[in-house]
Amino acid sequence: MFDISLGTNKKETQIDSEKIYDIIIIGGGPSGYSCAIYAARYGMDAVIIAKERGGLVTSTHIVENWPGEKAISGLDLMHKVEEHVKDYPVTIIDDSVIESKKEENIFYIKTQNGKKLKAYSILIATGTKRRELNAKGESEYANRGVSYCATCDGPLFKNKIVGVVGGSDSAAKEALFLSEHAKKVYIIYRKEKIRAEPINEKRVNENENIEIINNTNVIEIIGDGNRLTKVLFDKEYNGSKEFEIDGLFIEIGHLPQNDLAKQLGVELDEKGSIITDKYSKTNIEGVYAAGDVTDMEFKQAITGAAQGTVAAFSAFEYIGKIKK
Amino acid sequence: MFDISLGTNKKETQIDSEKIYDIIIIGGGPSGYSCAIYAARYGMDAVIIAKERGGLVTSTHIVENWPGEKAISGLDLMHKVEEHVKDYPVTIIDDSVIESKKEENIFYIKTQNGKKLKAYSILIATGTKRRELNAKGESEYANRGVSYCATCDGPLFKNKIVGVVGGSDSAAKEALFLSEHAKKVYIIYRKEKIRAEPINEKRVNENENIEIINNTNVIEIIGDGNRLTKVLFDKEYNGSKEFEIDGLFIEIGHLPQNDLAKQLGVELDEKGSIITDKYSKTNIEGVYAAGDVTDMEFKQAITGAAQGTVAAFSAFEYIGKIKK
Repeated sequence: MFDISLGTNKKETQIDSEKIYDIIIIGGGPSGYSCAIYAARYGMDAVIIAKERGGLVTSTHIVENWPGEKAISGLDLMHKVEEHVKDYPVTIIDDSVIESKKEENIFYIKTQNGKKLKAYSILIATGTKRRELNAKGESEYANRGVSYCATCDGPLFKNKIVGVVGGSDSAAKEALFLSEHAKKVYIIYRKEKIRAEPINEKRVNENENIEIINNTNVIEIIGDGNRLTKVLFDKEYNGSKEFEIDGLFIEIGHLPQNDLAKQLGVELDEKGSIITDKYSKTNIEGVYAAGDVTDMEFKQAITGAAQGTVAAFSAFEYIGKIKK
Repeated sequence: MFDISLGTNKKETQIDSEKIYDIIIIGGGPSGYSCAIYAARYGMDAVIIAKERGGLVTSTHIVENWPGEKAISGLDLMHKVEEHVKDYPVTIIDDSVIESKKEENIFYIKTQNGKKLKAYSILIATGTKRRELNAKGESEYANRGVSYCATCDGPLFKNKIVGVVGGSDSAAKEALFLSEHAKKVYIIYRKEKIRAEPINEKRVNENENIEIINNTNVIEIIGDGNRLTKVLFDKEYNGSKEFEIDGLFIEIGHLPQNDLAKQLGVELDEKGSIITDKYSKTNIEGVYAAGDVTDMEFKQAITGAAQGTVAAFSAFEYIGKIKK
């Protein structure tokens, strides 16, 4: 496994449990970091609690759609953004929030590592987690042939045969990345036609190393007790339901990380995403949300970043009012 | 005057007047350019009509709040974004739109230079124009001491005394920039307290070359027939209403460039800005808007860019439907 993590704060960060911060930013992706830059510029005392620095975009091999960057790795992009954040007096804690409540305009936060913090406002920018296939054998062969991150594990499958389960733009991009390493990549998709960005769909179709198996589900992951060796389809392909393969990448969507939002009574849509208006406000005063955890249908690094900056603006206005 | 323009297309661009483009993007700022990148990635035939390439941000001396860029000139930032656009088959025309109408799902556009274009959708990303003071003598001494762009003209006032009219964040930033050239900068503001980003307000207050004259209006601009020599205030300052000055920079806000929106019947708010939802949609099907021309209160390069990308997504979905 390649190390793709951003640096962590080696020095113990100074957290003042008595102080009421202006804003606690939960999440260290493009949304959280962009919010932090603006919050600091607005003179707000901000702290970021990041479970994984850089967020999901760090697992993107090449980002081609951050305006101004023709082609940059997700990791390099977020390195740049993190360096930008570090130019300002913002504390970043590598931790996650396990409890939150609001009492009389103050938010009380507890973290996994036992830290307690108070703030006038919070930004929920917790993103999503990868959805699992829930196929038989999936957990048994996780990291032994089954992977949820092509960027992380793809290079381990040099000249091997791999599958990608899914039909989204992310699945197409994973297949394209894998085709640079594996000798053959099968996209296994339950529906008729993949729904990638047209530019990526074209690249998939023109790539001789990639083949699409449509209208097919993987129902079981089979191995030799040590590693994945084959998968079982719900219908025959080339005369058999069994399909030999060295690696299987599962890219079937993401679930919003909304536990914190639920604790605070934040309104969610039917998918569990946080409902926000164009000023990144939720139904709870002082609670803002940005990025992949929100109901914004079009989830991009650039849109999350903008939602984060707008949240800083909204929080600044709100705090000005309640401090009066 | 310093040349701060981005490059123009030297070769005659190929515009096909018979073809129905997927989207005509009107405006060459962060919003328009970001829309173009996404539109092209979605396989849409896009054309950009830009009056001024790069948009208003190119007149910003240093941009410090584009996530990932600690400090970059507005011009350099937009160079990077324009180079990104040029990676895709998008035509950029240096021209402006003078007429537009919609007939049965098709938009018909006429430009200043006599070009005619058709499209299924349009993005209005025309930004704003600078507001004038409307003081006596203002037009007479424009470019002869009176300026609307500190980045363009500031260096001409080395060791001189200049004024900045306005109290916004932009006015504060202009004053800070001017203080690097002029020996003294007066911010002349009609209200009690300037309303800059706190980080910039602090910089203004700590800058020994900058002084703020509050609660004061400039009512006349006076010169020797050749150049500005002094201004007339509406109240005394240091015992006189006349105030000697070498240069006056007017930064009192912007007006949305909404002529095109009006022609199409697009709904505007009380300030004349285009009303949009969070998917960059207007009240007219097929018409999208992004950036400074919209009713988004928080107008930043990063938010405009995100609005532009969202517009590409919305237009792509809309066109898919009407082409069926």
